[in-house]
Amino acid sequence: MSAHQWLNHVKWDENGLVPAIAQEVGSNDVLMFAYMNREALQKTVELGEAVYWSRSRRKLWHKGEESGHVQKVHELRLDCDQDVVLMKVEQREGIACHTGRHSCFFEKLEQDGTSWRWVTTEPVLKDPESIYK
Amino acid sequence: MSAHQWLNHVKWDENGLVPAIAQEVGSNDVLMFAYMNREALQKTVELGEAVYWSRSRRKLWHKGEESGHVQKVHELRLDCDQDVVLMKVEQREGIACHTGRHSCFFEKLEQDGTSWRWVTTEPVLKDPESIYK
Repeated sequence: MSAHQWLNHVKWDENGLVPAIAQEVGSNDVLMFAYMNREALQKTVELGEAVYWSRSRRKLWHKGEESGHVQKVHELRLDCDQDVVLMKVEQREGIACHTGRHSCFFEKLEQDGTSWRWVTTEPVLKDPESIYK
Repeated sequence: MSAHQWLNHVKWDENGLVPAIAQEVGSNDVLMFAYMNREALQKTVELGEAVYWSRSRRKLWHKGEESGHVQKVHELRLDCDQDVVLMKVEQREGIACHTGRHSCFFEKLEQDGTSWRWVTTEPVLKDPESIYK
């Protein structure tokens, strides 16, 4: 129990989750955002690779288990409220997104006359069909 | 209505919120994490400054309204699921955290023998007492 005291320091939400941001070592690009439960965070530290909790599939999700796009964890941080995790990761193949892009944040807000619209940016580095065979 | 079509593109959660990550222009440091509702995101775009929804105070929170630590928004992005916002901001005084630190992510996980512990890093740039007079 005391060995996992660091896990008790995290303020898990009402669903036992904490939001987690993956940021690339070096570029500092924000790659993706997902959730972790207690077991996911513990496994992330044990493996040294990002493990999330998939809310849609309701199971642990070792990032890259299918795609090979594993995230090697270099550093883990918590925010001032202890309820958000920030990870510095090394992104295998430089592709974090299931669409084959570097980062999941590829829709950019641009002004279009008097209104605004989301515009897709960032090149697709690898065809998703070839990622998930 | 159609003028705000870009707001309908966002996938608001069951509470009408979307997580928002503030990242510093230039350094790419992740400064903080909070939530926005529809009105907060709309005001963020109108003002060009970050406006969040404070879940604890249950009201709009124009970041810096008390501290002066306003975040000027340079870019807004959405992730591949349209349910997370990433903002590139210019942080007034370089202080995003209410503790007077640059970033809210100042607790770092470090190995301590066979276990782990969260260690406080990052200098306090300004005494919180003098920020919130």
